[in-house]
Amino acid sequence: MTPDRREKEKSVAALVAPDILDLLENEPSSIAAETEELHPADLADVAELLPRELVPRLLTALAGPRAAAVLEYLDEELRSEILEAMDPEEAAVLLAGMTPDERVDVLDEMDEQAADEILEAIPAKERAETERLLQYEPDTAGGLMTTEFVSVPESQTVEDALAAVRGMARAGRREAMGTVYSVDAHGALTGVLSLRELLAAPEGARVADVAWSEVVTVPVTADREEVAQLTSNYDLVAVPVVDAERRLLGVITVDDVIDVIQEEQTEDVQKFGGLEALEDSYMNSSFGELLRKRAGWLMILFVGEMMTAGAMAYYQEEIATAVVLALFVPLIISSGGNSGSQATSLIIRAMALREVRLGDWWRVVMRELPAGLALGSILGLLGVGRVLLWQSLGLYDYGPYYIRIGLTVGFSLVGVVTFGTMTGAMLPFVLRRLGFDPASASAPFVATLVDVTGLVIYFSFALLLLRGTLL
Amino acid sequence: MTPDRREKEKSVAALVAPDILDLLENEPSSIAAETEELHPADLADVAELLPRELVPRLLTALAGPRAAAVLEYLDEELRSEILEAMDPEEAAVLLAGMTPDERVDVLDEMDEQAADEILEAIPAKERAETERLLQYEPDTAGGLMTTEFVSVPESQTVEDALAAVRGMARAGRREAMGTVYSVDAHGALTGVLSLRELLAAPEGARVADVAWSEVVTVPVTADREEVAQLTSNYDLVAVPVVDAERRLLGVITVDDVIDVIQEEQTEDVQKFGGLEALEDSYMNSSFGELLRKRAGWLMILFVGEMMTAGAMAYYQEEIATAVVLALFVPLIISSGGNSGSQATSLIIRAMALREVRLGDWWRVVMRELPAGLALGSILGLLGVGRVLLWQSLGLYDYGPYYIRIGLTVGFSLVGVVTFGTMTGAMLPFVLRRLGFDPASASAPFVATLVDVTGLVIYFSFALLLLRGTLL
Repeated sequence: MTPDRREKEKSVAALVAPDILDLLENEPSSIAAETEELHPADLADVAELLPRELVPRLLTALAGPRAAAVLEYLDEELRSEILEAMDPEEAAVLLAGMTPDERVDVLDEMDEQAADEILEAIPAKERAETERLLQYEPDTAGGLMTTEFVSVPESQTVEDALAAVRGMARAGRREAMGTVYSVDAHGALTGVLSLRELLAAPEGARVADVAWSEVVTVPVTADREEVAQLTSNYDLVAVPVVDAERRLLGVITVDDVIDVIQEEQTEDVQKFGGLEALEDSYMNSSFGELLRKRAGWLMILFVGEMMTAGAMAYYQEEIATAVVLALFVPLIISSGGNSGSQATSLIIRAMALREVRLGDWWRVVMRELPAGLALGSILGLLGVGRVLLWQSLGLYDYGPYYIRIGLTVGFSLVGVVTFGTMTGAMLPFVLRRLGFDPASASAPFVATLVDVTGLVIYFSFALLLLRGTLL
Repeated sequence: MTPDRREKEKSVAALVAPDILDLLENEPSSIAAETEELHPADLADVAELLPRELVPRLLTALAGPRAAAVLEYLDEELRSEILEAMDPEEAAVLLAGMTPDERVDVLDEMDEQAADEILEAIPAKERAETERLLQYEPDTAGGLMTTEFVSVPESQTVEDALAAVRGMARAGRREAMGTVYSVDAHGALTGVLSLRELLAAPEGARVADVAWSEVVTVPVTADREEVAQLTSNYDLVAVPVVDAERRLLGVITVDDVIDVIQEEQTEDVQKFGGLEALEDSYMNSSFGELLRKRAGWLMILFVGEMMTAGAMAYYQEEIATAVVLALFVPLIISSGGNSGSQATSLIIRAMALREVRLGDWWRVVMRELPAGLALGSILGLLGVGRVLLWQSLGLYDYGPYYIRIGLTVGFSLVGVVTFGTMTGAMLPFVLRRLGFDPASASAPFVATLVDVTGLVIYFSFALLLLRGTLL
């Protein structure tokens, strides 16, 4: 990762912020003109740098549609907070200017009473649209879709369809307008074509003649992950959302899909790190939230790991007789955890991308078993080498049975790494089979599973190879 | 994660595949008509299920543009393999029908000689276009961009611009056509507007009057991560790529950006799991590749972890005197590793999303230090409780000093978890500061760093609390 443009851009926002602060305090009327050249996303960055109480003043100073555009790029929590603090009438004007899907996202984040007050002040048409969208769960296709899309009767001519698009565009509808959907007499979706294809269509043609009939759709109740998967598989820029009768209810635009992909990925990384996924970004999460999401798993893992104390107690006589055995305990069990973490990361990601499915478990076994044996053998040789080298250099005296000790370490590593690899590779399958999220197979989870068995493997080899000598 | 549509769809492809296989063998001429209703992405799925030697026959049986569309969705390695095996003339026809950016991706994957042969057979215009794109590194903006885009002189009227778009669309150009770019007399990019905005523009207006002048661009040499970041920040559907004189060289479409985001995320997860990122998908990676990418880090971590053997040897007299101390070694060091893994996953993801920057390290310290202390105290109490409970239930006899042993375990856990949390949180900052990828701060890496110190913390508390009693 190289220092990036965004890093620089943030400092552009940081550079502009003092000027805007100055204008806000002295000449708010000139702000709209002075910031004309800034992208709304950059203006949103500036707003995030301002003292919170000044942000409403900035939004008021900007022209209506511009303020709404800035709101669309603003941090979700911040914008809800700001709108809650504003006069409901003023907030309603801003909200009405936002795209329907973003408007719903804002209201979902808000305190219910404040949301209701603002909703009542929104013009009737936008209010009805918003209330309809608010019914859907935020993490479903219905919760992601916008109602700003273009559908035309399939029997229409290309010219009429173009005129309809032009009319809607001139009316200020902004989203999902690059794609045109055709519907039959019952309102069911029958085809799709891009605006570019509509433009290129021969004059006099009917929409039905030029639209593609192979439309990829999602049901309104579909999980957002499914939406992301379809978008990526079919290279879509907009995903039509339909009801059971295949009537077009809305369209999900690709920018929202990208947000979903990023959020899902954040969840997966956090789960893999061994905590519950945060609801919010790291910096915006409260200290209490941070603790709660971490303490749960940490305690579960700790209780699981307590079994190592039991396993160690079981072998305490061997440890007392040959203290040298204790020296390699951390080295051996951590190698099992590390190899398990590698295997798990490979499999959960391959599952998330649908490259590996539940039914592929046997193929995975046939790759991971030899991989585990090979990796274990490499570490085993290193382990034997370590013992022999320290002995011959006089760094440590393992006594007369140093070769047997070396072999115990070596064979244990083969066993532990193979076991760790298999556990790491199979855990996501087991979790999915049981109906859990395979991404819950975190690195610490795998390590904990492997540690107890690792101790048993190690001491078993010790008993086998050292009995009658050291033990 | 619920069983998803894609899971079902794969079986649709699996369902259709036998029929297509049958047609291929008996009636190849009817294939184009019979598969008309299938999305090219689904046809590509079918192709991936067929015996490899039949795939070229399927492509030949489909009409030209359709075969090219299927190729665009086909697994990258498979399609390069198939085209390499085909007659160069035939392969050239298929390649010429693909979009310029996909064409380059295919050639990049191929054996150089085969690529050259096919390139020579491609029509001159497409060949020149392809050769120009081949100059750029695949992981840069230049390597991602397509040359199929629309730019118009800013002095043109809206009507002329629309006519130009229509002309290009009718000529079969397919990509990045929802956005129109305006350029000045020197060819420098001056504005952007969507096709929808072009349609909505008042008659007689000039492009310069209606285009947005705040165009977000990337330099042709920009890293693909930067492209992904911009697309996501500015909700773009196409990213214009410019040279140093701001001349428009190409456009990156959002479907390619989604692929980049997915690939980068795969790399990050694999790195976090403690291996080098794979070049290819898990299932398509060779066994040798799988081993190589894992063995390197596993060996480095093993050598690092060897220091635990040294640390244990340093305290072996204490262990010999009080074997009970050895029992808690795995429990204590693993708790440090687990809390470190949690903190690292939070920070590397926040860094990847640019929520946390290098300069934020102090703010992170001020959150993670209390978090570590709190989490350590929770585990410490559990640890003390474990010792007292086992003692009182008679499950294990820790002897007359069981309270001191319990306190040693408890204080050590506070220390180890706090240290693990801080190490996990700071390692990504240190790596980034040193110019490395912060995502290299894998869970096993953190655990290894924490293990040695964890031992020292534990035995130091033991010496402090047990000296004169057990020690």
